[in-house]
Amino acid sequence: MNVQGLFITFEGPDGAGKSTQVQKLAHYLQGKEISYIHTREPGGTAISDKIRSLILDPEHSEMVNETEVLLYAASRAQHVREKIIPALEEGKVVLCDRFVDASIAYQGFGLGIGQDKISEINRFATGGLKPSRTYLIDLSPEEGRKRMMERYKAANKTEQFDRIEQKELAYHETVRNGFHQIYETEKDRIYIIDGRQSVEEIFQQIKDDFDSICSKQGLKMER
Amino acid sequence: MNVQGLFITFEGPDGAGKSTQVQKLAHYLQGKEISYIHTREPGGTAISDKIRSLILDPEHSEMVNETEVLLYAASRAQHVREKIIPALEEGKVVLCDRFVDASIAYQGFGLGIGQDKISEINRFATGGLKPSRTYLIDLSPEEGRKRMMERYKAANKTEQFDRIEQKELAYHETVRNGFHQIYETEKDRIYIIDGRQSVEEIFQQIKDDFDSICSKQGLKMER
Repeated sequence: MNVQGLFITFEGPDGAGKSTQVQKLAHYLQGKEISYIHTREPGGTAISDKIRSLILDPEHSEMVNETEVLLYAASRAQHVREKIIPALEEGKVVLCDRFVDASIAYQGFGLGIGQDKISEINRFATGGLKPSRTYLIDLSPEEGRKRMMERYKAANKTEQFDRIEQKELAYHETVRNGFHQIYETEKDRIYIIDGRQSVEEIFQQIKDDFDSICSKQGLKMER
Repeated sequence: MNVQGLFITFEGPDGAGKSTQVQKLAHYLQGKEISYIHTREPGGTAISDKIRSLILDPEHSEMVNETEVLLYAASRAQHVREKIIPALEEGKVVLCDRFVDASIAYQGFGLGIGQDKISEINRFATGGLKPSRTYLIDLSPEEGRKRMMERYKAANKTEQFDRIEQKELAYHETVRNGFHQIYETEKDRIYIIDGRQSVEEIFQQIKDDFDSICSKQGLKMER
């Protein structure tokens, strides 16, 4: 199967099961012997990981919104150029947990900085790179929070929400609304999935859609 | 003397003697019992200092230009909002070693990213804050490098250039040209000084200019 340089991102709130779905799609690609990388934001490279820990450190409560926006963008600029673009150029599938849409939803909408400013800064950060397909797993903030709590309990951890997770439910509601608005303007790229479904039901939709993209790409390659 | 919220920046290459001049002006303000803060970029706050050490770490040779630009801007966003604006609002004089002009010269011109992109990102970072006066100490890269070497020798240190200092002279020539171009478009704000003069000669010009700004401001205050 010839899937050259497909860039797939996963978006949605914490607790929606993004990581599980990325892993399942990675496993599926492995089975089909399709070459891929699996990465995530913020992070993905040594420098990006250092920036990530600056952003998420609960001690940095004095961090202003503009700093947060620019740090996410800095981390992304490194990730895109050091890891994502080289993999795409080698013809690999890139599976990425969060990308620009997360910044637009969390910062543009959630922090009220505005979609345009976040888009502008991120165009500079990514050099204009866009995902071929984005799977947006939609879930209410209440349900997301409930699942995060269960996850901490299952891991026998006391609650340790990071600086972003600590924010209030109203903020997360604005973020969800942001994701919906991005979806409304980019329905061709974004595939929205009801996150209340079972892991297997969600993955079935992702797999079916992914297969359909591959066969379309395959046809293009044959021309 | 009533000098409310005056924001003064110092620009020029390493080795031009910016730090010495900032200190001398600070000392002069002290003598006149004018309330001031003395700060520098990159850095100036706890978060900004952490970002600064990420940028300057010689181990981060894989850092791409876009990441560097966004990190400087992130550091500045925090510095402006946590330290500079509050001091200006308290009516203090803010003396700052490097600011946006440095980013335009080093990154916009030096790295070839373009003045417009750097200006745009920094407008977001600073919220549009501009210095009232900028002292640009002009020096050729050769002279600047020579002085840096002498400085290391005097401090009994082996040469330990950081990631920016390590770059070649041609780069620093482009940076100097960048500073000149900024000066050409903003002659009202920027006061250019020949860095080959003695420390005392340079300071005399800064002091005379500063006094003249203060008396103008004083007149305004009296109205």
